[in-house]
Amino acid sequence: MKKAKIETIRHSLSHIMAHAVQDLFPKIKFGMGPAIENGFYYDFEFPQNISISDLPRIEKRMKHIIKRNISFKKRKLEKKEITKLFRNQPYKKELIKDLPKNTASFYESGNFIDLCKGPHVKSTKEIDLTAFKLTRTAGAYWKGSEKNPMLTRIYGVAFKTKKELTDYLSKLEEAKKRDHRLIGKQLELYAIYPEIGAGLPVWLPKGYRMRRILEDYMIKLERKYGYEHILTPHIGKDTLFKTSGHLDFYKESMYSPVEIDKETYYLKPMNCPMAIIVYKGNLHSYRELPIKMGEFGTVYRYEKSGELSGLSRVRGFTQNDAHIFCTPEQLMTQFIEVFKMLKIFYRDLGFTNYKFRLGLGDPKKEKFKYCGSKKDWNHAEETIKKALEKTGADYYEAVGEAAFYGPKLDVQAIDTLGREESISTIQIDFNLPEKFDMNYVGPNGKKQRPYVIHRALIGSFERFFAFLIEYYKGNFPLWLTPEQVWIIPISPKNKKYCKEIYQKLLENNFRVKIKDESESLSKKIRTGQLQKIPYLLIVGDKEMKTKSVSPRFRGKDLGQIKLTAFIKRLTIEIEKKK
Amino acid sequence: MKKAKIETIRHSLSHIMAHAVQDLFPKIKFGMGPAIENGFYYDFEFPQNISISDLPRIEKRMKHIIKRNISFKKRKLEKKEITKLFRNQPYKKELIKDLPKNTASFYESGNFIDLCKGPHVKSTKEIDLTAFKLTRTAGAYWKGSEKNPMLTRIYGVAFKTKKELTDYLSKLEEAKKRDHRLIGKQLELYAIYPEIGAGLPVWLPKGYRMRRILEDYMIKLERKYGYEHILTPHIGKDTLFKTSGHLDFYKESMYSPVEIDKETYYLKPMNCPMAIIVYKGNLHSYRELPIKMGEFGTVYRYEKSGELSGLSRVRGFTQNDAHIFCTPEQLMTQFIEVFKMLKIFYRDLGFTNYKFRLGLGDPKKEKFKYCGSKKDWNHAEETIKKALEKTGADYYEAVGEAAFYGPKLDVQAIDTLGREESISTIQIDFNLPEKFDMNYVGPNGKKQRPYVIHRALIGSFERFFAFLIEYYKGNFPLWLTPEQVWIIPISPKNKKYCKEIYQKLLENNFRVKIKDESESLSKKIRTGQLQKIPYLLIVGDKEMKTKSVSPRFRGKDLGQIKLTAFIKRLTIEIEKKK
Repeated sequence: MKKAKIETIRHSLSHIMAHAVQDLFPKIKFGMGPAIENGFYYDFEFPQNISISDLPRIEKRMKHIIKRNISFKKRKLEKKEITKLFRNQPYKKELIKDLPKNTASFYESGNFIDLCKGPHVKSTKEIDLTAFKLTRTAGAYWKGSEKNPMLTRIYGVAFKTKKELTDYLSKLEEAKKRDHRLIGKQLELYAIYPEIGAGLPVWLPKGYRMRRILEDYMIKLERKYGYEHILTPHIGKDTLFKTSGHLDFYKESMYSPVEIDKETYYLKPMNCPMAIIVYKGNLHSYRELPIKMGEFGTVYRYEKSGELSGLSRVRGFTQNDAHIFCTPEQLMTQFIEVFKMLKIFYRDLGFTNYKFRLGLGDPKKEKFKYCGSKKDWNHAEETIKKALEKTGADYYEAVGEAAFYGPKLDVQAIDTLGREESISTIQIDFNLPEKFDMNYVGPNGKKQRPYVIHRALIGSFERFFAFLIEYYKGNFPLWLTPEQVWIIPISPKNKKYCKEIYQKLLENNFRVKIKDESESLSKKIRTGQLQKIPYLLIVGDKEMKTKSVSPRFRGKDLGQIKLTAFIKRLTIEIEKKK
Repeated sequence: MKKAKIETIRHSLSHIMAHAVQDLFPKIKFGMGPAIENGFYYDFEFPQNISISDLPRIEKRMKHIIKRNISFKKRKLEKKEITKLFRNQPYKKELIKDLPKNTASFYESGNFIDLCKGPHVKSTKEIDLTAFKLTRTAGAYWKGSEKNPMLTRIYGVAFKTKKELTDYLSKLEEAKKRDHRLIGKQLELYAIYPEIGAGLPVWLPKGYRMRRILEDYMIKLERKYGYEHILTPHIGKDTLFKTSGHLDFYKESMYSPVEIDKETYYLKPMNCPMAIIVYKGNLHSYRELPIKMGEFGTVYRYEKSGELSGLSRVRGFTQNDAHIFCTPEQLMTQFIEVFKMLKIFYRDLGFTNYKFRLGLGDPKKEKFKYCGSKKDWNHAEETIKKALEKTGADYYEAVGEAAFYGPKLDVQAIDTLGREESISTIQIDFNLPEKFDMNYVGPNGKKQRPYVIHRALIGSFERFFAFLIEYYKGNFPLWLTPEQVWIIPISPKNKKYCKEIYQKLLENNFRVKIKDESESLSKKIRTGQLQKIPYLLIVGDKEMKTKSVSPRFRGKDLGQIKLTAFIKRLTIEIEKKK
């Protein structure tokens, strides 16, 4: 027997779930039920409230149905006839009414029928009883519109084998434990307050400390490569965004305007127009190029409230942004240089697994529907590819995935669960130089058009932090972690020596705290572990006598070592960015 | 003879100027002409265009009139009679019409008459011919309203003696040379672009470098005193500002709202409401207090376009803000601590001359028209005074100058020209703790209201930079200056050694540049001086042979010294914040 595709199995499981629900709740009204990534769902209008506690019962019934080796049969009828079959199903009737043709297909499996194009398994035999699981319920508007009634959606996950299911569920479990919203709260890194606004996170002291460390790191790295940094305001005149084209092509992501003295201003959704105005503030000669202008630029972009999530989907965020203004001839060296910086950045952050995704123009498009000339595009695309090959970077091409204004290169970091996150981006822009009539004086004394490269090593500090938290499960490398060492005296008479340690560590610029609250030792250690403090120094008479410490490093006992040796260890760890 | 007051002399000079203008331009129409600080002005409708080049002629005529020892005579007449005297003067007739009484006074001096209450000098004898000067012309709307015609205003300055005038003019000249708008442009510290928006400065690379140094300095200082830093968004829900009272009492300084998903947001004019929301995010025990929450908070406040000026009056600025949440008992120690920080800050910045201005409530007000109880106010005012006296700070009281929400203390820095600028502020707030129903759990287990102290050591980075630039005339202390050392090779064969110097200085974290462009040596030195680079190292064979440098320090030749000695000198200078 030819094995069914997993999507088919998932789709059939959706029917089987509906079948089971029908058996258990005869008055049920059916919505729709497709296969989705990793599983399936079905929307129902239940006669009563149901919750996750009802799922085992439904799952049991599903298994009962599957065991009966029920076959799936496809049939076709005229609309009128089908409507009769779904007499008591208002949602199904609505769907039938909207069908374009006069005939439609439906599936019959045991005493359950559903309007459906298929395909399905031939028989429930094909389904592994142990390889699926109902996971959760959620509210879902009929047809996704807020104007329609809210139905109850039941989600399930399904795979071909039990092992695949177990692997998936344990990954899910692990992902939950790593959820940056949980760890972010537990470690007090950030918070979102309904009083301030959805999608507008506040950086709390520990998060801000980490952000500032990263900002300093980036400024240092970028200055080494000749970047200079500016800071532009958060609002700008409408004419800026008219010229740039944002008000034409990006308006749905921009907020409503602010009026000042009869002039119209917008919260900036991107930093580029302002960087270009700064460039245009002076005349430039080819001798000055490339100019590399960086900015920690905070932008505000609209996201639907339903799509907001922790730090990963927000309405205001800060980019580690930069614009490189260069000549066409400098494109190759500039790309290679950015790759070099990326490599250092990813190495220092401990991201070992990442790949480049090169978004190219679509050559099949009849007319060349992009900004800039075909010649420029070809030059740019060939140059990027050559640069990627020169540096031996791992990349794949995504034809047709370029921006309308130029080819772009995204860097996808991959976490321990195999999940990808877009961290960095490098894009060529053939639109803005034209729109803003940017120039430099070439060697021949004539005006030339510069290339503009948008480049963000950290596309969003907020999204990056979400990734960072989940990647490290909150156990950040020592150089990044907001609190590096806690010193815990065993008894009050050890306090003096604790202060001595504290002072020494402070002098060496470590982030350190003495925990001398009147709590039990074990509670302090437990709190330190929950707070994911890398080093806990429990200080007693033994340590005091020998001017040493007994560090507990991320739960592991390192034994007694001299304070000087401990300082050396920390210094090396920070230098190596471990 | 009793000498006339300087205000009287200035007012009389205004009449004499109008008299002179009448002699020279018989068809002139008169507006108004009062005495002002340091001088006087008069508004005219001229039959032709006049400019600054006409002023010497008018001044000459004024001197001619003064020499004639003309006396000023006050007379009183009925409105109808006076109107006849000003037959051809439409503006004067308008003024007469608006007078509340039926009689009015006017002054006669020679063949010039003016509607005026006086007082005036008895005779022009009392005026020192050499102690006044006409300075400039400007456009001014009649009665200050844009709906009225634009008149020409002529400004003069006047003092009792020639010496006073000379002193004043040379101070003015010096102030012009120190103008931060000029130096800011010359040193490329910041720029304001009409394309981005009036009052919305962009920090250019050198300015941002300085700002970042100051931010780091402040974070370090504040952390030492137990401050923790947050970062809040630039927009927040309207309810925040309704609760805080800003939308009731501060709306004219706030920008029009932004709509997001049918909710109303405002650009924040102050950081306090958000800091309070963060405080309220957790329960607090008295044991945790004081909580010191700092933020480099960027706020947006409306200023009239006519009042915008460089960095000193802007529409968006960043505060080195902090909120101290404490118990009433902690007020004294908290004030003393802030004074300590202020003292360190002002010393490190080289501001030797400053004073405290204590804004107190007005006890004469019949009802106590402030937020908070009289008891709280008394306690706060007495505590601040005691704290000031304990630290021996130079302060003066300004009765009735408190904010409506609490007493406040401003720190006025005084520059070399004797000009004051409000740099820092410390304010107690009895309004917000009530409005936001803030609490902490007291030792008795009951809810208590905390005190809130607003505290900004740098009230606005922008305004502070305006002051800093003018204070130092762009010759910033070494630790703050964006570029510390330029290395200038005399000939190409010195370049290798220049790179060696460069590398050594870089390793020691100095901000250094090699100037090896193909320009003449003298031009490079001149540019370095104009750019106010503290150290210029001109490197020739002599220096190369002996591994030394010959620094030119702010225009002064320091002679040849070993490179190691030079590094030591710089290190000490930076440590000492000279």
